[in-house]
Amino acid sequence: MVSVSLGANKYGKAENRIVRIYRDTPRHEIVDLNVTSQLRGAALRDSYLTGDNALVVATDTQKNTAFAFAKEHGVASPEEYLLALSAHFVDGFDWIEGGLWQTEQYEWDRIAVDGRPHDHAFVRRGQGTRLATVQVVDGATHVTGGVTDLTVLKSTGSEFSGFPRDRYTTLVETDDRIMATSVTGRWRFLPEAVAAGIDYNALYAEVTAVLLSTFATVHSLALQQTLFAMGTAAIEARPEIAEVRFAMPNKHHFLSDLSPFGLDNPGEVFYAADRPYGLIEGTVTRDGVDAAPAAWLDLPGFV
Amino acid sequence: MVSVSLGANKYGKAENRIVRIYRDTPRHEIVDLNVTSQLRGAALRDSYLTGDNALVVATDTQKNTAFAFAKEHGVASPEEYLLALSAHFVDGFDWIEGGLWQTEQYEWDRIAVDGRPHDHAFVRRGQGTRLATVQVVDGATHVTGGVTDLTVLKSTGSEFSGFPRDRYTTLVETDDRIMATSVTGRWRFLPEAVAAGIDYNALYAEVTAVLLSTFATVHSLALQQTLFAMGTAAIEARPEIAEVRFAMPNKHHFLSDLSPFGLDNPGEVFYAADRPYGLIEGTVTRDGVDAAPAAWLDLPGFV
Amino acid sequence: MVSVSLGANKYGKAENRIVRIYRDTPRHEIVDLNVTSQLRGAALRDSYLTGDNALVVATDTQKNTAFAFAKEHGVASPEEYLLALSAHFVDGFDWIEGGLWQTEQYEWDRIAVDGRPHDHAFVRRGQGTRLATVQVVDGATHVTGGVTDLTVLKSTGSEFSGFPRDRYTTLVETDDRIMATSVTGRWRFLPEAVAAGIDYNALYAEVTAVLLSTFATVHSLALQQTLFAMGTAAIEARPEIAEVRFAMPNKHHFLSDLSPFGLDNPGEVFYAADRPYGLIEGTVTRDGVDAAPAAWLDLPGFV
Amino acid sequence: MVSVSLGANKYGKAENRIVRIYRDTPRHEIVDLNVTSQLRGAALRDSYLTGDNALVVATDTQKNTAFAFAKEHGVASPEEYLLALSAHFVDGFDWIEGGLWQTEQYEWDRIAVDGRPHDHAFVRRGQGTRLATVQVVDGATHVTGGVTDLTVLKSTGSEFSGFPRDRYTTLVETDDRIMATSVTGRWRFLPEAVAAGIDYNALYAEVTAVLLSTFATVHSLALQQTLFAMGTAAIEARPEIAEVRFAMPNKHHFLSDLSPFGLDNPGEVFYAADRPYGLIEGTVTRDGVDAAPAAWLDLPGFV
Repeated sequence: MVSVSLGANKYGKAENRIVRIYRDTPRHEIVDLNVTSQLRGAALRDSYLTGDNALVVATDTQKNTAFAFAKEHGVASPEEYLLALSAHFVDGFDWIEGGLWQTEQYEWDRIAVDGRPHDHAFVRRGQGTRLATVQVVDGATHVTGGVTDLTVLKSTGSEFSGFPRDRYTTLVETDDRIMATSVTGRWRFLPEAVAAGIDYNALYAEVTAVLLSTFATVHSLALQQTLFAMGTAAIEARPEIAEVRFAMPNKHHFLSDLSPFGLDNPGEVFYAADRPYGLIEGTVTRDGVDAAPAAWLDLPGFV
Repeated sequence: MVSVSLGANKYGKAENRIVRIYRDTPRHEIVDLNVTSQLRGAALRDSYLTGDNALVVATDTQKNTAFAFAKEHGVASPEEYLLALSAHFVDGFDWIEGGLWQTEQYEWDRIAVDGRPHDHAFVRRGQGTRLATVQVVDGATHVTGGVTDLTVLKSTGSEFSGFPRDRYTTLVETDDRIMATSVTGRWRFLPEAVAAGIDYNALYAEVTAVLLSTFATVHSLALQQTLFAMGTAAIEARPEIAEVRFAMPNKHHFLSDLSPFGLDNPGEVFYAADRPYGLIEGTVTRDGVDAAPAAWLDLPGFV
Repeated sequence: MVSVSLGANKYGKAENRIVRIYRDTPRHEIVDLNVTSQLRGAALRDSYLTGDNALVVATDTQKNTAFAFAKEHGVASPEEYLLALSAHFVDGFDWIEGGLWQTEQYEWDRIAVDGRPHDHAFVRRGQGTRLATVQVVDGATHVTGGVTDLTVLKSTGSEFSGFPRDRYTTLVETDDRIMATSVTGRWRFLPEAVAAGIDYNALYAEVTAVLLSTFATVHSLALQQTLFAMGTAAIEARPEIAEVRFAMPNKHHFLSDLSPFGLDNPGEVFYAADRPYGLIEGTVTRDGVDAAPAAWLDLPGFV
Repeated sequence: MVSVSLGANKYGKAENRIVRIYRDTPRHEIVDLNVTSQLRGAALRDSYLTGDNALVVATDTQKNTAFAFAKEHGVASPEEYLLALSAHFVDGFDWIEGGLWQTEQYEWDRIAVDGRPHDHAFVRRGQGTRLATVQVVDGATHVTGGVTDLTVLKSTGSEFSGFPRDRYTTLVETDDRIMATSVTGRWRFLPEAVAAGIDYNALYAEVTAVLLSTFATVHSLALQQTLFAMGTAAIEARPEIAEVRFAMPNKHHFLSDLSPFGLDNPGEVFYAADRPYGLIEGTVTRDGVDAAPAAWLDLPGFV
């Protein structure tokens, strides 16, 4: 007879689409979230081993709590909302040892009417999705912010050359190419900054602006170099940030070969390819801070 | 033996991802397109009946032409680019009687660096995708512009009541709900306006702004009413527009029932549902213009 | 002042995900549908013009009816279910003149346990999605069946040559290529066959089998030729079918150029491209039957 | 001045869509893969820090190698193909210390013609996607197989009750519900089994069959219990497997409330919801084997 055991596990309710409207004044505010809550605890093993649910805080209960907290605690920022949610479960059920709570946030702009932003009509911005996570592991709470689907392109100011050549290398060196990527990045907050309180919304706006301007201004010799510069700039901009992890697909734009048609093509007409794509991943860490692998538990490596 | 015939048909190359960079000055411009070209002609029947390709302008040739024209003719606007492409095929091959040419356009904003828009670094806007079509049928050329994935939401100013009730009706009337939709709309240009020349890019900007502001300001008794008001406003704004067709999903936001938790919920916490969704479709036509069903050939009814 | 009118329109509830279990015996049956219901009627114009909903059978009511009918009338086949649903609305509300009702059906296989199909455990088949529509226009009822996402590939038995060459032609002729497509097809049933009654489920199984075997056995000189042969075979197989409309992307598989690595590649290693793709569309009609453009109203041209 | 360092990183080419045809006899075989190759090595840091590419084996070279190896080494199984690919990079470039290589495999069935499977015409199966990874870390090579998108449903034989109730709990206990999930699972092979050689294709067929039959036959008190039983059965079936990790969304099917329409609904009509969904994740490990966290490096926690 084979003997087996339960290893790492967690469970919960994913992708609760919660929209919170603040309507205390005629000028409404909107917070549009996709919320996932998952719990961990050694005592939960019986639900796996025997289907005993006596300690299983139902995923439906987790959902209800996520909706109720949007009213009871509000959503000053996704990070603060997730902190409240995580504390509720970890403090409220003594057998819940930790978990992972996540949000995606879709941002909305006010519609302009006669040049003025409207009080209660919005258009979805569509430029990047904001990310946040709270992770509780071994009694410690870790918080990250982030962004995904932030798609950027430089039409010049990017080279790629000097790479080694082997039997399988056919790539031609270039000193001028389009560089495009869709940035996914997460920044981990220093625990002491979390404890002191952070203006997470202002920080998000500042960090994404810094990521964009760094992408724009770095003359790029490799997407790796751009990635590292972007992470460095984020850490330099905000003392609350301990490290930044990025995944950046190199969204290839190939120069179209128009020579069969008697046309030259000095960097003007490109074919935007879908697959395959380069995939550059990396971490930039502030020197002197403690590593916190638990903050990244169960997230994809990047990110 | 059963006797059959070939009915309606067309063929071509779909989703050519063409990116055109204008780099005549250090301040680059970018036009990012997804181009589809398809041809029709009675003489093409032999490729269906016997596999005789003697008259089949290869889909690969259509692709090459689309790329080459981005250089030779440029892309002043998607509509003008498609007009050049359609004329090439219809005028250049006497057995090609017509076809359908389409673009999606992804818009990019300049990245701000120190408060100034950068010369050659861009971030994808993500707020709606621009559409254009040219259709040639029976010697006539039809042009449409449009937009899709323009997602909007009003947090108040929307009612729904007064509808009939039958055995299967359970919906409660409401005088205050969230109304959200993702607008797909296409506007057909009057042939005489196309002949006279149109500033298609300025028109697109104006029409989408009018659609947004009308959505914002109309107090809505039904999404149908909002749709009609939006089409009317577009036609009023621009004399070049003969008609507008819309498909608008009613993206339901259901008030979360927090009463089991002892909480009231005066329009503050909503569940954004995926499926099912309402689907409202309609056409607004300028009185006195000729109908042009051929302009809409092979497009989904809405739109 | 600009004068405008309401043109073509319809409204309803899209993508109701209805799963019907038949459990009269321990051997359960499952029917898994995505149902869309939309209504048309001249009297509905007031909802567009003024927001008067007095005649608007709410989209929520359409949803409720779709769920209730899965119990009251059952789902012997998607076509019969849609016929019952359409009759309910057109006969039950005198101002509803017609509409469009559609289903997608996801098929499930029984899981094999010890070589025997299980009574109540299923695995989703994933090989094509079944389609059906009922359309009521001007007092006539039209029914179509169909299939989408039926992805097929031939590793030989496909050529493409003999096409015309112009300035933009670079494609090399080939007498052996991979041919792959994802078939979307819809077949319109003859009204007299609908009136007499059809075993729609058996017909679907037979037609999809005939489409597959025809794709396999026709030596292809062009995807157009294969399309026409497939439609012909379907019409030959079943006298109930009046016409078949297809959209077939040519999913290109390009031979990988391994010569830089000193390797030959006699049709062995291919790159499967995403975009662009060929797009071949066509209709095969049984000679002698009446055309029925209303059957295809508001569906994309193909299909 | 802030001081920063490069943390974890890797880079490569993702989603190479490689189709390998074996055509040595008229009965062709097809292997359809999506291949990702990524490399790690401390010496690669200079590309991040300064854009020095002297040691960067270009992502384009990784792509070329992946295509060439499909010819040179063939694809007896995805696992063996990835082992060859990983060995090439780690052994061939002394500064490449490791990496992660992954495949998705899309399976094809032969089309039946007159009851016989065709020699060179195929239809995509669509029932689950096969997964494989090879990871090289610190000189050790780890191999996993797996499956994703294997969607299963039981129409009875599933309960959920006995869970704790708090202020936010509204869920009603049930002793008969639909249970549906889309299985993603990965199984790690014991290093000694990899060294001895494994018939990976036969193992995949056996493990997926065991997962399905276990899902079917376990009377389920919780999806957690079903998950653990499935992992246990896989480990019992094949001695090569050290552990299995699963992510299983609980795809909710809610009983439709037909009582307002005077209809009962004894488990017959369900609404299949999209979001939110339960998300149950867990690991089943064979007792006595060494843990290998490096095998799972950079993969999402589950899985």
